[in-house]
Amino acid sequence: MNFREKYGEWGVILGATEGMGKSMAEAIAERGMSVVLVGRREEMLKELGKEISAKYGVEHKVVRADFAQDDSVDIVTEATKGLDMGFMSYVACSHQFGKVQDMPWEDHWRMMNVNVITFMKLMYHYLSIFAKQDRGAIINISSMTGITSSPYIAQYGAGKAYILKMTEAVAYECAKTNVDVLVITAGSTITPTWLKNQPGGPDGEKARREAMLPEDVIAEAIEELGKKRSIVAGEKNKAAVRHFLTNMTADEQAAMMGSYYEDH
Amino acid sequence: MNFREKYGEWGVILGATEGMGKSMAEAIAERGMSVVLVGRREEMLKELGKEISAKYGVEHKVVRADFAQDDSVDIVTEATKGLDMGFMSYVACSHQFGKVQDMPWEDHWRMMNVNVITFMKLMYHYLSIFAKQDRGAIINISSMTGITSSPYIAQYGAGKAYILKMTEAVAYECAKTNVDVLVITAGSTITPTWLKNQPGGPDGEKARREAMLPEDVIAEAIEELGKKRSIVAGEKNKAAVRHFLTNMTADEQAAMMGSYYEDH
Repeated sequence: MNFREKYGEWGVILGATEGMGKSMAEAIAERGMSVVLVGRREEMLKELGKEISAKYGVEHKVVRADFAQDDSVDIVTEATKGLDMGFMSYVACSHQFGKVQDMPWEDHWRMMNVNVITFMKLMYHYLSIFAKQDRGAIINISSMTGITSSPYIAQYGAGKAYILKMTEAVAYECAKTNVDVLVITAGSTITPTWLKNQPGGPDGEKARREAMLPEDVIAEAIEELGKKRSIVAGEKNKAAVRHFLTNMTADEQAAMMGSYYEDH
Repeated sequence: MNFREKYGEWGVILGATEGMGKSMAEAIAERGMSVVLVGRREEMLKELGKEISAKYGVEHKVVRADFAQDDSVDIVTEATKGLDMGFMSYVACSHQFGKVQDMPWEDHWRMMNVNVITFMKLMYHYLSIFAKQDRGAIINISSMTGITSSPYIAQYGAGKAYILKMTEAVAYECAKTNVDVLVITAGSTITPTWLKNQPGGPDGEKARREAMLPEDVIAEAIEELGKKRSIVAGEKNKAAVRHFLTNMTADEQAAMMGSYYEDH
Protein backbone atom coordinates (compact mmCIF):
# COMPACT_ATOMS: atom_id res chain seq x y z
CA MET A 1 0.00 0.00 0.00
CA ASN A 2 1.20 3.50 -0.82
CA PHE A 3 1.09 5.46 2.43
CA ARG A 4 1.94 8.75 0.70
CA GLU A 5 -1.29 8.59 -1.31
CA LYS A 6 -3.37 7.36 1.59
CA TYR A 7 -2.02 9.41 4.51
CA GLY A 8 0.09 12.28 3.14
CA GLU A 9 3.56 13.29 2.09
CA TRP A 10 5.50 13.29 5.35
CA GLY A 11 5.76 11.11 8.45
CA VAL A 12 7.53 11.98 11.69
CA ILE A 13 9.34 9.30 13.66
CA LEU A 14 9.90 10.37 17.26
CA GLY A 15 12.89 8.36 18.37
CA ALA A 16 14.20 7.29 14.97
CA THR A 17 17.89 6.69 15.62
CA GLU A 18 17.93 2.93 15.92
CA GLY A 19 15.87 -0.13 16.78
CA MET A 20 12.14 0.09 16.16
CA GLY A 21 12.22 3.78 15.26
CA LYS A 22 14.70 3.13 12.48
CA SER A 23 12.60 0.22 11.22
CA MET A 24 9.49 2.41 11.30
CA ALA A 25 11.20 5.12 9.25
CA GLU A 26 12.26 2.57 6.67
CA ALA A 27 8.80 1.00 6.53
CA ILE A 28 6.99 4.25 5.75
CA ALA A 29 9.69 5.39 3.32
CA GLU A 30 9.26 2.10 1.50
CA ARG A 31 5.58 3.07 1.20
CA GLY A 32 6.44 6.40 -0.38
CA MET A 33 6.50 8.81 2.54
CA SER A 34 9.25 11.32 3.21
CA VAL A 35 10.52 11.12 6.77
CA VAL A 36 11.24 13.53 9.59
CA LEU A 37 13.76 11.72 11.77
CA VAL A 38 13.86 12.95 15.37
CA GLY A 39 16.29 11.98 18.10
CA ARG A 40 19.28 13.08 20.13
CA ARG A 41 22.10 11.67 18.01
CA GLU A 42 22.16 13.92 14.99
CA GLU A 43 25.03 12.24 13.14
CA MET A 44 23.37 8.83 13.23
CA LEU A 45 20.10 10.34 12.05
CA LYS A 46 21.85 12.08 9.15
CA GLU A 47 23.39 8.80 8.07
CA LEU A 48 20.03 7.06 8.31
CA GLY A 49 18.33 9.87 6.36
CA LYS A 50 20.87 9.61 3.55
CA GLU A 51 20.45 5.84 3.36
CA ILE A 52 16.67 6.11 3.29
CA SER A 53 16.62 8.81 0.61
CA ALA A 54 19.04 6.83 -1.54
CA LYS A 55 17.17 3.58 -1.15
CA TYR A 56 13.54 4.73 -1.41
CA GLY A 57 13.78 8.01 -3.34
CA VAL A 58 11.99 10.04 -0.66
CA GLU A 59 13.02 13.23 1.10
CA HIS A 60 14.22 13.34 4.68
CA LYS A 61 14.69 15.89 7.41
CA VAL A 62 16.75 15.42 10.56
CA VAL A 63 15.68 17.10 13.80
CA ARG A 64 17.81 17.04 16.93
CA ALA A 65 15.59 16.97 20.01
CA ASP A 66 15.76 15.46 23.48
CA PHE A 67 12.29 14.30 24.53
CA ALA A 68 13.26 14.77 28.18
CA GLN A 69 13.49 18.53 27.58
CA ASP A 70 10.54 20.94 27.54
CA ASP A 71 11.67 22.56 24.29
CA SER A 72 11.54 19.32 22.31
CA VAL A 73 7.86 19.76 21.46
CA ASP A 74 8.41 23.22 19.97
CA ILE A 75 11.51 22.07 18.11
CA VAL A 76 9.66 19.16 16.51
CA THR A 77 6.41 20.95 15.68
CA GLU A 78 8.33 23.92 14.28
CA ALA A 79 10.33 21.58 12.03
CA THR A 80 7.20 19.99 10.54
CA LYS A 81 5.30 23.26 10.10
CA GLY A 82 4.15 23.70 6.51
CA LEU A 83 4.82 20.08 5.59
CA ASP A 84 1.95 17.88 4.45
CA MET A 85 1.98 15.63 7.52
CA GLY A 86 0.27 12.25 7.38
CA PHE A 87 2.01 9.95 9.85
CA MET A 88 3.51 10.00 13.32
CA SER A 89 5.03 7.32 15.47
CA TYR A 90 6.20 7.76 19.06
CA VAL A 91 8.95 5.22 19.66
CA ALA A 92 11.07 7.10 22.21
CA CYS A 93 11.23 5.80 25.76
CA SER A 94 13.41 6.07 28.83
CA HIS A 95 14.06 3.58 31.60
CA GLN A 96 16.24 3.09 34.63
CA PHE A 97 16.61 0.11 36.94
CA GLY A 98 16.11 0.33 40.69
CA LYS A 99 13.51 0.98 43.36
CA VAL A 100 11.37 4.07 42.85
CA GLN A 101 12.54 5.85 46.01
CA ASP A 102 16.22 5.03 45.36
CA MET A 103 16.37 7.28 42.27
CA PRO A 104 16.72 11.06 42.48
CA TRP A 105 13.50 12.86 41.49
CA GLU A 106 15.31 14.32 38.46
CA ASP A 107 15.58 10.83 36.99
CA HIS A 108 11.87 10.21 37.42
CA TRP A 109 11.11 13.58 35.89
CA ARG A 110 13.28 12.81 32.87
CA MET A 111 11.54 9.46 32.35
CA MET A 112 8.07 10.95 32.86
CA ASN A 113 8.86 13.59 30.27
CA VAL A 114 10.01 11.08 27.66
CA ASN A 115 7.44 8.37 28.42
CA VAL A 116 4.33 10.42 29.19
CA ILE A 117 4.44 14.21 28.89
CA THR A 118 6.27 14.77 25.60
CA PHE A 119 4.45 11.75 24.15
CA MET A 120 1.07 13.29 25.00
CA LYS A 121 1.99 16.76 23.73
CA LEU A 122 3.19 15.45 20.37
CA MET A 123 0.33 12.95 20.05
CA TYR A 124 -2.13 15.80 20.68
CA HIS A 125 -0.40 18.03 18.12
CA TYR A 126 -0.37 15.55 15.24
CA LEU A 127 -3.71 13.96 16.10
CA SER A 128 -5.28 17.43 15.90
CA ILE A 129 -3.80 17.94 12.42
CA PHE A 130 -4.84 14.48 11.20
CA ALA A 131 -8.37 14.77 12.63
CA LYS A 132 -8.86 18.18 11.04
CA GLN A 133 -7.78 16.99 7.58
CA ASP A 134 -9.50 13.61 8.18
CA ARG A 135 -6.38 11.85 6.91
CA GLY A 136 -3.35 10.41 8.65
CA ALA A 137 -2.01 7.56 10.72
CA ILE A 138 -0.45 7.06 14.14
CA ILE A 139 1.48 4.03 15.35
CA ASN A 140 2.74 4.06 18.95
CA ILE A 141 4.89 1.50 20.70
CA SER A 142 4.03 0.04 24.07
CA SER A 143 5.59 -2.82 25.97
CA MET A 144 4.56 -5.93 27.88
CA THR A 145 5.91 -4.19 30.99
CA GLY A 146 2.91 -1.86 30.64
CA ILE A 147 0.55 -4.82 30.83
CA THR A 148 2.09 -6.67 33.75
CA SER A 149 3.50 -3.66 35.66
CA SER A 150 7.25 -3.78 36.17
CA PRO A 151 8.91 -3.58 39.57
CA TYR A 152 12.49 -2.20 39.51
CA ILE A 153 11.72 -0.46 36.22
CA ALA A 154 8.43 1.01 37.40
CA GLN A 155 8.53 4.38 35.66
CA TYR A 156 9.03 2.71 32.30
CA GLY A 157 6.16 0.25 32.76
CA ALA A 158 3.74 2.89 34.06
CA GLY A 159 4.59 5.16 31.15
CA LYS A 160 4.07 2.33 28.67
CA ALA A 161 0.66 1.62 30.26
CA TYR A 162 -0.23 5.29 29.77
CA ILE A 163 0.80 5.17 26.09
CA LEU A 164 -1.11 1.92 25.58
CA LYS A 165 -4.38 3.07 27.13
CA MET A 166 -4.23 6.58 25.62
CA THR A 167 -3.58 5.22 22.13
CA GLU A 168 -6.27 2.53 22.44
CA ALA A 169 -8.81 5.19 23.40
CA VAL A 170 -7.81 7.56 20.60
CA ALA A 171 -7.84 4.68 18.11
CA TYR A 172 -11.45 3.93 18.95
CA GLU A 173 -12.38 7.62 18.84
CA CYS A 174 -10.92 7.73 15.30
CA ALA A 175 -12.35 4.39 14.21
CA LYS A 176 -15.03 5.76 11.88
CA THR A 177 -12.73 8.38 10.33
CA ASN A 178 -9.88 8.27 7.83
CA VAL A 179 -7.32 8.53 10.63
CA ASP A 180 -5.87 5.10 11.40
CA VAL A 181 -4.42 4.67 14.89
CA LEU A 182 -2.67 1.60 16.25
CA VAL A 183 -0.59 0.71 19.29
CA ILE A 184 1.67 -2.33 19.26
CA THR A 185 2.78 -3.96 22.50
CA ALA A 186 6.28 -5.30 21.98
CA GLY A 187 7.92 -8.00 24.04
CA SER A 188 11.66 -8.62 24.01
CA THR A 189 12.95 -7.05 20.81
CA ILE A 190 16.57 -7.04 19.66
CA THR A 191 17.33 -3.32 19.80
CA PRO A 192 20.68 -1.83 20.86
CA THR A 193 19.17 -0.70 24.21
CA TRP A 194 17.62 -4.10 24.87
CA LEU A 195 20.86 -5.92 24.08
CA LYS A 196 22.78 -3.80 26.61
CA ASN A 197 20.36 -4.91 29.35
CA GLN A 198 20.59 -8.65 28.80
CA PRO A 199 22.48 -10.89 31.18
CA GLY A 200 25.53 -12.83 29.96
CA GLY A 201 25.81 -16.62 29.70
CA PRO A 202 23.02 -19.03 28.79
CA ASP A 203 20.23 -16.72 30.11
CA GLY A 204 21.31 -13.98 27.75
CA GLU A 205 21.67 -16.41 24.86
CA LYS A 206 18.17 -17.77 25.46
CA ALA A 207 16.70 -14.26 25.64
CA ARG A 208 18.40 -13.28 22.37
CA ARG A 209 17.23 -16.45 20.66
CA GLU A 210 13.60 -15.85 21.65
CA ALA A 211 13.44 -12.10 21.06
CA MET A 212 11.92 -10.56 17.94
CA LEU A 213 13.68 -8.44 15.35
CA PRO A 214 12.55 -4.80 15.35
CA GLU A 215 11.69 -4.94 11.63
CA ASP A 216 9.30 -7.84 12.32
CA VAL A 217 7.51 -5.90 15.08
CA ILE A 218 7.12 -2.92 12.76
CA ALA A 219 6.03 -5.05 9.79
CA GLU A 220 3.20 -6.47 11.90
CA ALA A 221 2.14 -2.99 13.05
CA ILE A 222 2.13 -1.71 9.46
CA GLU A 223 0.20 -4.77 8.27
CA GLU A 224 -2.54 -4.35 10.91
CA LEU A 225 -2.83 -0.55 10.67
CA GLY A 226 -6.42 0.32 9.77
CA LYS A 227 -7.59 -3.21 10.57
CA LYS A 228 -6.92 -3.56 14.30
CA ARG A 229 -6.20 -0.90 16.93
CA SER A 230 -4.27 -2.61 19.72
CA ILE A 231 -2.10 -5.63 19.07
CA VAL A 232 0.67 -7.62 20.72
CA ALA A 233 3.71 -8.26 18.51
CA GLY A 234 4.42 -11.84 17.46
CA GLU A 235 2.87 -15.20 18.25
CA LYS A 236 5.03 -15.93 21.31
CA ASN A 237 4.23 -12.58 22.94
CA LYS A 238 0.55 -12.94 22.09
CA ALA A 239 0.48 -16.32 23.82
CA ALA A 240 2.41 -14.93 26.81
CA VAL A 241 0.05 -11.96 27.27
CA ARG A 242 -2.97 -14.25 26.92
CA HIS A 243 -1.49 -16.51 29.60
CA PHE A 244 -0.77 -13.57 31.95
CA LEU A 245 -4.27 -12.13 31.62
CA THR A 246 -6.11 -15.44 31.77
CA ASN A 247 -4.20 -17.42 34.37
CA MET A 248 -2.34 -14.97 36.59
CA THR A 249 -3.48 -12.37 39.12
CA ALA A 250 -2.06 -8.85 38.94
CA ASP A 251 0.04 -9.68 42.01
CA GLU A 252 1.46 -12.79 40.32
CA GLN A 253 2.27 -10.84 37.15
CA ALA A 254 4.10 -8.14 39.11
CA ALA A 255 6.00 -10.79 41.07
CA MET A 256 7.06 -12.53 37.86
CA MET A 257 8.37 -9.29 36.34
CA GLY A 258 9.84 -8.17 39.65
CA SER A 259 11.86 -11.33 40.16
CA TYR A 260 13.13 -11.00 36.58
CA TYR A 261 14.23 -7.37 36.96
CA GLU A 262 15.46 -7.64 40.55
CA ASP A 263 18.86 -8.85 39.38
CA HIS A 264 19.53 -5.84 37.18
CA MET B 1 -6.13 -3.34 63.63
CA ASN B 2 -4.66 -0.16 65.05
CA PHE B 3 -3.02 1.68 62.16
CA ARG B 4 -1.49 4.31 64.43
CA GLU B 5 0.62 1.68 66.20
CA LYS B 6 1.48 -0.17 63.02
CA TYR B 7 2.10 2.66 60.55
CA GLY B 8 2.45 5.94 62.49
CA GLU B 9 0.56 8.87 63.90
CA TRP B 10 -0.65 10.72 60.80
CA GLY B 11 -2.12 9.82 57.42
CA VAL B 12 -2.61 12.16 54.47
CA ILE B 13 -5.65 11.80 52.20
CA LEU B 14 -5.09 13.50 48.87
CA GLY B 15 -8.57 14.32 47.63
CA ALA B 16 -10.47 13.90 50.90
CA THR B 17 -13.52 16.11 50.40
CA GLU B 18 -16.11 13.51 49.51
CA GLY B 19 -16.67 10.04 48.05
CA MET B 20 -13.83 7.55 48.46
CA GLY B 21 -11.42 10.11 49.95
CA LYS B 22 -13.84 10.92 52.74
CA SER B 23 -14.39 7.20 53.39
CA MET B 24 -10.63 6.64 53.46
CA ALA B 25 -10.14 9.43 56.02
CA GLU B 26 -12.83 7.93 58.24
CA ALA B 27 -11.40 4.42 57.88
CA ILE B 28 -7.91 5.36 59.06
CA ALA B 29 -9.24 7.66 61.81
CA GLU B 30 -11.31 4.73 63.04
CA ARG B 31 -8.00 2.86 63.27
CA GLY B 32 -6.44 5.57 65.43
CA MET B 33 -4.63 7.78 62.91
CA SER B 34 -4.85 11.54 62.83
CA VAL B 35 -5.70 12.82 59.36
CA VAL B 36 -4.38 15.49 57.01
CA LEU B 37 -7.32 16.26 54.72
CA VAL B 38 -6.32 17.77 51.38
CA GLY B 39 -8.57 19.16 48.67
CA ARG B 40 -9.88 22.33 47.04
CA ARG B 41 -13.04 22.90 49.08
CA GLU B 42 -11.72 24.08 52.42
CA GLU B 43 -15.07 24.56 54.16
CA MET B 44 -16.19 21.01 53.43
CA LEU B 45 -12.85 19.66 54.62
CA LYS B 46 -13.11 21.65 57.87
CA GLU B 47 -16.57 20.20 58.51
CA LEU B 48 -15.28 16.69 57.80
CA GLY B 49 -12.25 17.23 60.04
CA LYS B 50 -14.44 18.33 62.95
CA GLU B 51 -16.74 15.34 62.52
CA ILE B 52 -13.81 12.94 62.39
CA SER B 53 -12.10 14.41 65.45
CA ALA B 54 -15.35 14.34 67.40
CA LYS B 55 -16.20 10.79 66.39
CA TYR B 56 -12.79 9.08 66.61
CA GLY B 57 -10.86 11.30 69.03
CA VAL B 58 -7.98 11.91 66.61
CA GLU B 59 -6.43 15.16 65.44
CA HIS B 60 -7.01 16.62 62.01
CA LYS B 61 -5.41 19.18 59.74
CA VAL B 62 -7.03 20.76 56.70
CA VAL B 63 -4.90 21.71 53.70
CA ARG B 64 -6.28 23.61 50.74
CA ALA B 65 -4.53 22.53 47.54
CA ASP B 66 -5.47 22.10 43.89
CA PHE B 67 -3.67 19.08 42.45
CA ALA B 68 -3.83 20.64 39.00
CA GLN B 69 -1.46 23.38 40.21
CA ASP B 70 2.32 23.06 40.43
CA ASP B 71 2.42 24.50 43.95
CA SER B 72 0.16 21.79 45.40
CA VAL B 73 3.09 19.45 46.06
CA ASP B 74 4.97 22.06 48.12
CA ILE B 75 1.81 23.07 49.97
CA VAL B 76 1.06 19.49 50.97
CA THR B 77 4.59 18.40 51.86
CA GLU B 78 5.15 21.62 53.83
CA ALA B 79 1.95 20.97 55.82
CA THR B 80 3.03 17.45 56.84
CA LYS B 81 6.63 18.40 57.67
CA GLY B 82 7.54 17.38 61.20
CA LEU B 83 4.51 15.11 61.58
CA ASP B 84 5.02 11.40 62.18
CA MET B 85 3.64 10.31 58.80
CA GLY B 86 2.56 6.71 58.30
CA PHE B 87 -0.11 6.65 55.61
CA MET B 88 -0.95 8.25 52.31
CA SER B 89 -3.76 7.73 49.85
CA TYR B 90 -4.09 9.40 46.46
CA VAL B 91 -7.78 9.56 45.63
CA ALA B 92 -7.86 12.74 43.55
CA CYS B 93 -8.66 12.47 39.86
CA SER B 94 -9.86 14.63 37.01
CA HIS B 95 -11.86 13.74 33.92
CA GLN B 96 -13.61 15.37 31.01
CA PHE B 97 -15.77 13.86 28.29
CA GLY B 98 -15.01 14.25 24.59
CA LYS B 99 -12.52 13.35 21.88
CA VAL B 100 -8.87 14.00 22.75
CA GLN B 101 -8.32 16.57 19.97
CA ASP B 102 -11.58 18.39 20.74
CA MET B 103 -10.33 19.61 24.14
CA PRO B 104 -7.98 22.57 24.54
CA TRP B 105 -4.50 21.50 25.60
CA GLU B 106 -4.98 23.32 28.92
CA ASP B 107 -7.67 20.78 29.84
CA HIS B 108 -5.37 17.87 29.09
CA TRP B 109 -2.60 19.50 31.08
CA ARG B 110 -4.91 19.99 34.07
CA MET B 111 -5.97 16.33 33.94
CA MET B 112 -2.38 15.09 33.46
CA ASN B 113 -1.31 17.11 36.49
CA VAL B 114 -4.03 15.70 38.72
CA ASN B 115 -3.98 12.13 37.40
CA VAL B 116 -0.26 11.57 36.76
CA ILE B 117 2.24 14.31 37.66
CA THR B 118 1.08 15.45 41.11
CA PHE B 119 0.24 11.83 41.95
CA MET B 120 3.81 10.74 41.15
CA LYS B 121 5.43 13.64 43.01
CA LEU B 122 3.45 13.01 46.18
CA MET B 123 3.80 9.23 45.93
CA TYR B 124 7.59 9.65 45.61
CA HIS B 125 7.69 12.04 48.58
CA TYR B 126 5.78 9.84 51.04
CA LEU B 127 7.17 6.55 49.73
CA SER B 128 10.68 7.92 50.37
CA ILE B 129 9.73 8.76 53.98
CA PHE B 130 8.05 5.39 54.57
CA ALA B 131 10.89 3.39 52.99
CA LYS B 132 13.49 5.25 55.07
CA GLN B 133 11.67 4.60 58.37
CA ASP B 134 10.63 1.12 57.14
CA ARG B 135 7.08 1.80 58.29
CA GLY B 136 4.00 3.12 56.56
CA ALA B 137 1.22 2.33 54.13
CA ILE B 138 -0.04 3.58 50.79
CA ILE B 139 -3.44 2.93 49.23
CA ASN B 140 -4.10 4.37 45.77
CA ILE B 141 -7.32 4.31 43.78
CA SER B 142 -7.47 3.18 40.17
CA SER B 143 -10.44 2.52 37.93
CA MET B 144 -11.72 -0.11 35.52
CA THR B 145 -11.29 2.54 32.80
CA GLY B 146 -7.55 2.09 33.33
CA ILE B 147 -7.84 -1.61 32.53
CA THR B 148 -10.06 -1.42 29.45
CA SER B 149 -8.91 1.98 28.13
CA SER B 150 -11.67 4.55 27.86
CA PRO B 151 -12.54 6.36 24.63
CA TYR B 152 -14.19 9.78 25.13
CA ILE B 153 -12.65 9.99 28.61
CA ALA B 154 -9.17 8.97 27.47
CA GLN B 155 -7.05 11.17 29.71
CA TYR B 156 -8.76 9.80 32.80
CA GLY B 157 -8.34 6.15 31.77
CA ALA B 158 -4.69 6.57 30.75
CA GLY B 159 -3.93 8.32 34.04
CA LYS B 160 -5.64 5.55 35.99
CA ALA B 161 -3.55 2.97 34.10
CA TYR B 162 -0.42 4.89 35.12
CA ILE B 163 -1.48 4.94 38.79
CA LEU B 164 -2.35 1.24 38.65
CA LYS B 165 0.90 0.07 37.11
CA MET B 166 3.09 2.44 39.16
CA THR B 167 1.48 1.36 42.42
CA GLU B 168 1.60 -2.36 41.53
CA ALA B 169 5.33 -2.05 40.84
CA VAL B 170 6.05 -0.11 44.04
CA ALA B 171 3.93 -2.56 46.04
CA TYR B 172 6.12 -5.44 44.86
CA GLU B 173 9.31 -3.49 45.50
CA CYS B 174 8.10 -2.94 49.10
CA ALA B 175 6.76 -6.48 49.56
CA LYS B 176 9.49 -7.69 51.90
CA THR B 177 9.53 -4.50 53.98
CA ASN B 178 7.23 -3.01 56.61
CA VAL B 179 5.74 -0.63 54.06
CA ASP B 180 2.38 -1.96 52.86
CA VAL B 181 1.26 -0.74 49.43
CA LEU B 182 -2.03 -1.51 47.70
CA VAL B 183 -3.96 -0.25 44.70
CA ILE B 184 -7.68 -0.86 44.39
CA THR B 185 -9.40 -0.76 41.02
CA ALA B 186 -12.89 0.62 41.53
CA GLY B 187 -15.81 0.14 39.18
CA SER B 188 -18.96 2.26 39.34
CA THR B 189 -19.02 3.76 42.83
CA ILE B 190 -21.71 6.05 44.18
CA THR B 191 -19.71 9.25 44.68
CA PRO B 192 -21.06 12.77 44.06
CA THR B 193 -18.98 13.06 40.86
CA TRP B 194 -20.13 9.68 39.57
CA LEU B 195 -23.80 10.48 40.25
CA LYS B 196 -23.57 13.69 38.22
CA ASN B 197 -22.41 11.69 35.20
CA GLN B 198 -25.16 9.09 35.16
CA PRO B 199 -27.91 9.17 32.55
CA GLY B 200 -31.53 9.66 33.66
CA GLY B 201 -34.35 7.12 33.32
CA PRO B 202 -34.02 3.36 33.67
CA ASP B 203 -30.33 3.31 32.56
CA GLY B 204 -29.40 5.63 35.39
CA GLU B 205 -31.50 3.68 37.88
CA LYS B 206 -29.86 0.42 36.84
CA ALA B 207 -26.38 1.95 37.16
CA ARG B 208 -27.16 3.30 40.65
CA ARG B 209 -28.59 -0.05 41.74
CA GLU B 210 -25.46 -1.94 40.65
CA ALA B 211 -22.82 0.53 41.81
CA MET B 212 -20.83 0.11 45.04
CA LEU B 213 -20.83 2.41 48.02
CA PRO B 214 -17.52 4.24 48.53
CA GLU B 215 -17.23 2.96 52.11
CA ASP B 216 -17.44 -0.63 50.84
CA VAL B 217 -14.64 -0.04 48.31
CA ILE B 218 -12.46 1.46 51.04
CA ALA B 219 -13.32 -1.26 53.56
CA GLU B 220 -12.10 -3.90 51.09
CA ALA B 221 -8.88 -1.96 50.45
CA ILE B 222 -8.22 -1.61 54.18
CA GLU B 223 -8.98 -5.30 54.75
CA GLU B 224 -6.55 -6.47 52.04
CA LEU B 225 -3.74 -4.00 52.85
CA GLY B 226 -0.62 -5.99 53.67
CA LYS B 227 -2.12 -9.18 52.23
CA LYS B 228 -2.62 -8.38 48.56
CA ARG B 229 -1.15 -5.60 46.45
CA SER B 230 -3.54 -5.05 43.51
CA ILE B 231 -7.23 -5.82 43.83
CA VAL B 232 -10.49 -5.08 42.06
CA ALA B 233 -13.29 -3.81 44.33
CA GLY B 234 -16.31 -6.02 44.84
CA GLU B 235 -17.44 -9.36 43.45
CA LYS B 236 -19.32 -7.91 40.45
CA ASN B 237 -16.35 -5.82 39.32
CA LYS B 238 -13.97 -8.74 39.87
CA ALA B 239 -16.13 -10.92 37.63
CA ALA B 240 -16.39 -8.15 35.03
CA VAL B 241 -12.61 -7.59 34.89
CA ARG B 242 -12.01 -11.32 34.69
CA HIS B 243 -14.47 -11.52 31.78
CA PHE B 244 -12.82 -8.56 29.97
CA LEU B 245 -9.32 -9.99 30.31
CA THR B 246 -10.24 -13.58 29.52
CA ASN B 247 -12.83 -13.28 26.78
CA MET B 248 -12.36 -9.92 25.07
CA THR B 249 -9.60 -8.47 22.93
CA ALA B 250 -8.22 -5.01 23.74
CA ASP B 251 -10.15 -3.68 20.72
CA GLU B 252 -13.40 -5.18 21.99
CA GLN B 253 -12.85 -3.73 25.47
CA ALA B 254 -12.20 -0.25 24.08
CA ALA B 255 -15.27 -0.52 21.84
CA MET B 256 -17.43 -1.53 24.80
CA MET B 257 -16.26 1.43 26.88
CA GLY B 258 -16.36 3.75 23.89
CA SER B 259 -19.95 2.97 23.02
CA TYR B 260 -20.87 3.51 26.68
CA TYR B 261 -19.17 6.90 26.94
CA GLU B 262 -20.00 8.11 23.43
CA ASP B 263 -23.40 9.37 24.63
CA HIS B 264 -21.97 11.62 27.32
